[in-house]
Amino acid sequence: MPNIDFLYEILEKRGVSGDEHAFSAFVVDYVLQRRKNWKVQPEVYFGEKFHDNIILKFGNPRTVVFAHMDTIGFTARYENQLVPVGGPDVSDGDVLVGEDALGYIECSVTVDDGKVTHDFPRGIVPGTNLSYKQDVKVADGYIQAAYLDNRLGVYNALQLCEDLEDGVIVFSTYEEHGGGSVPFLMKYVYENWGVRQALISDITWVTEGVRHHEGVAISLRDQFIPRKVYVDKILQLAEESGVPYQVEVEGAGGSDGREVQMSHYMVDWCFIGAAEDNVHTPYEKVSLKDLEAMIMMYKYLMAHL
Amino acid sequence: MPNIDFLYEILEKRGVSGDEHAFSAFVVDYVLQRRKNWKVQPEVYFGEKFHDNIILKFGNPRTVVFAHMDTIGFTARYENQLVPVGGPDVSDGDVLVGEDALGYIECSVTVDDGKVTHDFPRGIVPGTNLSYKQDVKVADGYIQAAYLDNRLGVYNALQLCEDLEDGVIVFSTYEEHGGGSVPFLMKYVYENWGVRQALISDITWVTEGVRHHEGVAISLRDQFIPRKVYVDKILQLAEESGVPYQVEVEGAGGSDGREVQMSHYMVDWCFIGAAEDNVHTPYEKVSLKDLEAMIMMYKYLMAHL
Amino acid sequence: MPNIDFLYEILEKRGVSGDEHAFSAFVVDYVLQRRKNWKVQPEVYFGEKFHDNIILKFGNPRTVVFAHMDTIGFTARYENQLVPVGGPDVSDGDVLVGEDALGYIECSVTVDDGKVTHDFPRGIVPGTNLSYKQDVKVADGYIQAAYLDNRLGVYNALQLCEDLEDGVIVFSTYEEHGGGSVPFLMKYVYENWGVRQALISDITWVTEGVRHHEGVAISLRDQFIPRKVYVDKILQLAEESGVPYQVEVEGAGGSDGREVQMSHYMVDWCFIGAAEDNVHTPYEKVSLKDLEAMIMMYKYLMAHL
Repeated sequence: MPNIDFLYEILEKRGVSGDEHAFSAFVVDYVLQRRKNWKVQPEVYFGEKFHDNIILKFGNPRTVVFAHMDTIGFTARYENQLVPVGGPDVSDGDVLVGEDALGYIECSVTVDDGKVTHDFPRGIVPGTNLSYKQDVKVADGYIQAAYLDNRLGVYNALQLCEDLEDGVIVFSTYEEHGGGSVPFLMKYVYENWGVRQALISDITWVTEGVRHHEGVAISLRDQFIPRKVYVDKILQLAEESGVPYQVEVEGAGGSDGREVQMSHYMVDWCFIGAAEDNVHTPYEKVSLKDLEAMIMMYKYLMAHL
Repeated sequence: MPNIDFLYEILEKRGVSGDEHAFSAFVVDYVLQRRKNWKVQPEVYFGEKFHDNIILKFGNPRTVVFAHMDTIGFTARYENQLVPVGGPDVSDGDVLVGEDALGYIECSVTVDDGKVTHDFPRGIVPGTNLSYKQDVKVADGYIQAAYLDNRLGVYNALQLCEDLEDGVIVFSTYEEHGGGSVPFLMKYVYENWGVRQALISDITWVTEGVRHHEGVAISLRDQFIPRKVYVDKILQLAEESGVPYQVEVEGAGGSDGREVQMSHYMVDWCFIGAAEDNVHTPYEKVSLKDLEAMIMMYKYLMAHL
Repeated sequence: MPNIDFLYEILEKRGVSGDEHAFSAFVVDYVLQRRKNWKVQPEVYFGEKFHDNIILKFGNPRTVVFAHMDTIGFTARYENQLVPVGGPDVSDGDVLVGEDALGYIECSVTVDDGKVTHDFPRGIVPGTNLSYKQDVKVADGYIQAAYLDNRLGVYNALQLCEDLEDGVIVFSTYEEHGGGSVPFLMKYVYENWGVRQALISDITWVTEGVRHHEGVAISLRDQFIPRKVYVDKILQLAEESGVPYQVEVEGAGGSDGREVQMSHYMVDWCFIGAAEDNVHTPYEKVSLKDLEAMIMMYKYLMAHL
């Protein structure tokens, strides 16, 4: 079973939206090596036809899980300017890393009236992507790191693979920046296997209603609204599962669920994930108990939904 | 023919976006009972495969009518907070109703700096939907009520069924809150029957250019722009019809027409509907003459377009 | 080969989003007459089934070029009001032209606190489209005119046809105002010919990083982000081509590329085009050298990509 060391490993991988190629290849390698230990051998779909997305199909699927592989970050522009990818919540002095044709890059940022610049001594090749330097801390029941959103969602999905019998697992791209992969992926999953239920394996926000250590959050809505008959069914199963959970009701925020909703297919979706503090900073923070509840809840739901 | 009592009946039904299940079942029941009196027996498509949407197919269709079943409203959040569904134009003291596991709910709202809260003495189960308490008034040539947008569009579509020979009638969900059903519905209608013309049976706004009692509004554009060759054809038929109409030109607002435009199918669309005052309040107000013109115009267009 | 006179000719044609019918017919006529001189005879797709879009298919295509035919402009509303189509950057005194049932229209605009009105002595039929009066100037290495965005992209695409062996050329509608045609067009091109690479033949902005006379701009991102592996491949080919180019990195702006990204098909896209000053005014201005580089770069890429 993928353990905390494996989580450390994927937290070290960069993969800004649009630039998921290397991380996707890493996940494919892992899957191809690891799957012999899984209860059921999935069919694995990847490669140019899928761009950098990955689809694993187990048994006779009824439900698809989406976990996005990309992270927020920045694109180098001209001079020392940086353009955001997704919505980084960046602060003066945050350290960014990346690589261009001239080599490894590590620099600090200055934020002035919304404009972000870096202090790297040489110019960075325009179009190069940078993201937070990683610094993982596990202590006092928490994990703190950059990229928890959504490396934890990916970790959850890979844990799920260990004993999944029926289901589809999708590792998607572009979620943090406008989306665009899920329309194809949903089409593929629906047309090939008729799957009509989706779960979004992603990380949400700690708020006044969703707190650390109180279980995985089941989101009844964010900016978009899943169908009530579906989330009611999930809540009933969650209650039966005995796994700690809390319900979330928000008016803002989005996920791959939005694109499932907007797709040409009638597929129900629900966002389920642990909550984090310090969203889109280098020190996102999640309760290990909530992460454990997330994994247990997904295992229960994939078996019973 | 469905009369004013039937209109009263559907105005009493709640159905906030995402929570149209009960209202959809009511419409299906009505259709299945009523259709024996219709000139042509339609094929009726509904059920889980269609989520809560309904498709009626009459004869050899050339045109599809979309009428959305959902209404604006609110989702209960934590404490006594409410999150809007769609864009309710709510005022202090407006009365909301709904139901959760603990029973019937009726409460008043307070609006403070954009934050909406309720005064229900007990907590409301988070995720519960509330909407305006209904109070229908018919007097002086007007109907005033909550949910006229879009119970009148549904009413119009059902009137149309009485003697429709060729056409598709779609009762859709989610229109008030981001959409997401029309991509599937348009795909279904196009791929099965090759329909390339759409009319949007919905309610618009009284403005300086669109007034009560002056006929049904034919919208030449809102935030989105239908193809000019199509609206020109409709205007010509409208002129021939002898039915009172007025043209609308707006820079804002949207409808299911937006999703027809964005779909993967080349389908022309045009919004045609009576205009209302007090949009998205509990006392929306429409001229009965304009409603009558709407019904007559749809009957003419469905026969001649 | 279409020369500068032909460019003058298409600059005189109006075609506000939603109202491309006449310009589309003009392009079809040109294609049907001109194609006998082309190196390869394309299949030509147009007509009601395609609304006002046009598809040319040459040989065994690997790459599709999108060039939008529509322009920004205004719709006449009530009284003397005008509602914008797309994002015109209009100034007091700009001259607009158009035509309604009563005849030719030429008028000046007044801009007051964001509200645009015209001074035409009679009322204009609501729904009538107006756009900038044309005034083409070629001098000092520049072309200055209205509609350069995107008549130059169309011109580029038609130049490309002269000796194109393998590829698809699409002339699209609605790009300036919300889009809606590309989902269908991309579906058609992908499903019929399996094309998975797209180039967006359109005009971008002069900025601090993209200057006149320094070559065609290859956009590494705008509001949306193409896949890095694809733009890297294009940059490598651009380097090999010897054609002058510059790279663009922006955080805003969009194109038909957005809709390729959001489509149900895994198709890479990249925006490549000359840059202009005075965007969406009557006096857009492009370097003739950059236009020439644009044409040369497309010829190279369509052969080698």
